[in-house]
Amino acid sequence: MQSNSHFHEHKLRQQPADEWKLEQGLEPARLMLRNQSNVKINTESPEIAKSNSSELRAGKSDDEPEIIVEEERKGWKGYVEWEDYPEKKSNARQRFAQFKFPPPPEFQLEPLPETNPVLEGIRWKMWHRAIGGALANVPEESWKTVLKGGETSRNASPPRISNEDLFPRSSTLITIQCSGTRRIEQIVEYPGEGDEMINAPWAEGAIGTAKWTGVSLKKVIKYCGGLKEGGKHLELYGAETYFKGGECMNYVVSVPWSKVKANEVLLAWEMNEKPLPKIHGFPLRVVVMGYIGARSVKWLYRVKAIETPSRAPVQSREYLYFQQQAGKHNQLPTMGIQIQEMPVSSAIMTPWNKEVVVHNGQIEVSGWAYSGGGRWPERVEISADGGYVWYPIPLENLSAKHKFAWRTWSGSVPCDHEGWTELVVRCWDNSLNTQPMAVRHSWNWGLHVTSSCHRVKIYSVNASKYATRRRLEQFEERGESFMPITRPTEFLPMTMENYEKSWLAMEPRDVDD
Amino acid sequence: MQSNSHFHEHKLRQQPADEWKLEQGLEPARLMLRNQSNVKINTESPEIAKSNSSELRAGKSDDEPEIIVEEERKGWKGYVEWEDYPEKKSNARQRFAQFKFPPPPEFQLEPLPETNPVLEGIRWKMWHRAIGGALANVPEESWKTVLKGGETSRNASPPRISNEDLFPRSSTLITIQCSGTRRIEQIVEYPGEGDEMINAPWAEGAIGTAKWTGVSLKKVIKYCGGLKEGGKHLELYGAETYFKGGECMNYVVSVPWSKVKANEVLLAWEMNEKPLPKIHGFPLRVVVMGYIGARSVKWLYRVKAIETPSRAPVQSREYLYFQQQAGKHNQLPTMGIQIQEMPVSSAIMTPWNKEVVVHNGQIEVSGWAYSGGGRWPERVEISADGGYVWYPIPLENLSAKHKFAWRTWSGSVPCDHEGWTELVVRCWDNSLNTQPMAVRHSWNWGLHVTSSCHRVKIYSVNASKYATRRRLEQFEERGESFMPITRPTEFLPMTMENYEKSWLAMEPRDVDD
Repeated sequence: MQSNSHFHEHKLRQQPADEWKLEQGLEPARLMLRNQSNVKINTESPEIAKSNSSELRAGKSDDEPEIIVEEERKGWKGYVEWEDYPEKKSNARQRFAQFKFPPPPEFQLEPLPETNPVLEGIRWKMWHRAIGGALANVPEESWKTVLKGGETSRNASPPRISNEDLFPRSSTLITIQCSGTRRIEQIVEYPGEGDEMINAPWAEGAIGTAKWTGVSLKKVIKYCGGLKEGGKHLELYGAETYFKGGECMNYVVSVPWSKVKANEVLLAWEMNEKPLPKIHGFPLRVVVMGYIGARSVKWLYRVKAIETPSRAPVQSREYLYFQQQAGKHNQLPTMGIQIQEMPVSSAIMTPWNKEVVVHNGQIEVSGWAYSGGGRWPERVEISADGGYVWYPIPLENLSAKHKFAWRTWSGSVPCDHEGWTELVVRCWDNSLNTQPMAVRHSWNWGLHVTSSCHRVKIYSVNASKYATRRRLEQFEERGESFMPITRPTEFLPMTMENYEKSWLAMEPRDVDD
Repeated sequence: MQSNSHFHEHKLRQQPADEWKLEQGLEPARLMLRNQSNVKINTESPEIAKSNSSELRAGKSDDEPEIIVEEERKGWKGYVEWEDYPEKKSNARQRFAQFKFPPPPEFQLEPLPETNPVLEGIRWKMWHRAIGGALANVPEESWKTVLKGGETSRNASPPRISNEDLFPRSSTLITIQCSGTRRIEQIVEYPGEGDEMINAPWAEGAIGTAKWTGVSLKKVIKYCGGLKEGGKHLELYGAETYFKGGECMNYVVSVPWSKVKANEVLLAWEMNEKPLPKIHGFPLRVVVMGYIGARSVKWLYRVKAIETPSRAPVQSREYLYFQQQAGKHNQLPTMGIQIQEMPVSSAIMTPWNKEVVVHNGQIEVSGWAYSGGGRWPERVEISADGGYVWYPIPLENLSAKHKFAWRTWSGSVPCDHEGWTELVVRCWDNSLNTQPMAVRHSWNWGLHVTSSCHRVKIYSVNASKYATRRRLEQFEERGESFMPITRPTEFLPMTMENYEKSWLAMEPRDVDD
């Protein structure tokens, strides 16, 4: 330990004058550096990408010609089977090297933009612009499709693969969940690796359930003569352009043969008994039951048997579950677990965070519960005291059990106490796995798999208590707004006459002898 | 709220003079009643069964004749296929009604008997005595078999079912785990429903791994012509006498057809490449992969296709996982989840609880990790600070991955600090399920499925610190025992000369002005 004077001389710096804003949470976090090592560290802030259109082409070198991207199939504007054109991939890499792409924006240190809940994809647009030609306007066209509700074609016909003679169709209710679901809770606790598109600050969404119809990939492989020698994984190629590390490529992941063999990988052409909407992967997509959404490749155009899990970046370098002490500077991709099945999880959808809930001693709560890998919620429990006492949701208040789908639920939890409290939900699946209590217990730098109990802060007002009900009536009698509760109330909750009576009945506040 | 005087008058009782023993943990817990309701409650203690032999026959009425139990197969003394003899079952019930069986002993409120780690089964003996005849001495004979190491017969031959022409044998490494594993941790926190045999106070044992050889039940069913119409569960009958609620019966449970169909139910006749020892179920037992041990019926003699899970007591009324707020007086069997797959779990095998660990800044730890239902441990983490900072066990220090077996592991965790601390282990399985942090988070009245992180209290002595190493040397120089550390040490850790030097260098303890 250094002497005090030395310490004072070298270690104290001027604290920023507006540090109190950060302390009080009045502005998003700024992460400052305090270097206590003798290592030289560059702290110059990179310029973050902004969305104004002039900058979208900033840094462009017009020396390089645009890459000619054919429309390979009518109506498939801009989608390219990159793996078939190694020369074009090489051209694109060289072309990208001419551009100066600013670092990706992230939304942990600043408020979400007005575009929320849809992040606009600034860098995604930039990459498309950089390719040019048929791809340049794909982002805008995709967005128009989204606004039209996904644009399922009325006369969309299932793809050739659906020939019912070869492949009898099957339908399954399947929940598709992103490993980023509930990521915002990790960010609030400690930020991690976040960028605009991949690591978006999802809340209780990024999960959905639909009835998917198609054919088991197993049947197709069998029809094609079975797996090639040594094949242990199926690599799935999506007909979309994916950008990573200065390259463009297809979206590619893999699933193990054991998963396919169990008839848990569906090639789907219908969603909820209608032809697949474009944005959901028309004409054909993969739906991997019980795995994260990232494995359910859209716009599927190729399936390849390989010996190891795919080396493509989505599989090998993204969607990795790191250990709590593995961080930005001490991690290798091989230290992360490739995320396939999601653990048991649940979320409260109502009440909302920071709501004031007026109730009669029972708070009504609703939400969802899910477990990956073909497991299902067996029990959902709610706590109104931050996780000490737990009340089960009655079984009849849970939606039906399915092997690959969530269960929605609703019920009430006794809440006698008033004031700020935390509603907490936890789920037990059929393997009796449950959720850790605190966000820190599953926090990781990649901000994936937020599996801890979901907590919602509410302010409890128990109107079944006499004094509280009387007080609520007073607000009504005076025509005074009950909200916001953080505003000081002008009228006294007790007459001075009653105050004096109480004073006489109790001992004085201070003791004289 | 009542007035103080009223409260004093009615609510305070004489506190037992030796209450301090309970407070200080110097004797096992006595559970006392404080009745604040107006319900009349009987608190007379029942007489607990004692093991002395005269009492084993206490209460016997000799009016009823003994039940003649034939030896149905040579060498199967006392084993009876009760379901084939409804008349004998009825006789037994009537006979039991003549006896006064004392309540089962349990070991949460008193120390384990000298027979530990094997509980002797006082009531089990009583039930056998009550039947009489061929069954009377089965407990003693079973124990002799245990002492002989299970008594695998040298010339034991596999049963008829193993005919290799019909059923090719298969071998699988399988961990069998009791849902009571690590139950002791729940008992220490809060006791629950425990009895001598079924709810024994297991620690990190009650789990084991072996190579099991046999034939998939699916193949046998297929050979027999397939499942009968409406069959959805397979009921498994063990050729042992099981006592419950004044009846004797066979040990019977069931597994769903989906489990059998997946080739995860083995009929085994070999354990670790040797014929099945008698105590492990010779000649034939079930091994249900990834389910609790209670489903792996020994001495199998009948398999029956049924439409619902078995209504036999082991399946319908035991091995139920209740909710934390479901207790002795507000539970119904239908409120419990029938335990099949166990959740992810792990345990520290070394160091032991309350050990003093002298180390050089790294504590060596070893243990096991397991997850039910065909999942496997992907990551094991150790904390030396009660669960705040976690270090991963290097992957090369985990035993090989198997779908239905545990992984043993060893590694070291940095520990700079000294004094009492908690080593904690947690595991993440391939579905990224993990363990809750505290025992309370999975506590339940039935004391099943102790899935929280395993914690071991140790006293850390970091010999890499100069002062600590010097102190350890002093013990050696003086020939004085280092243990027990709770004993006051006679010699000073500092000379008075050094004490004076320090005093001069620092400011005096008290401030004068």
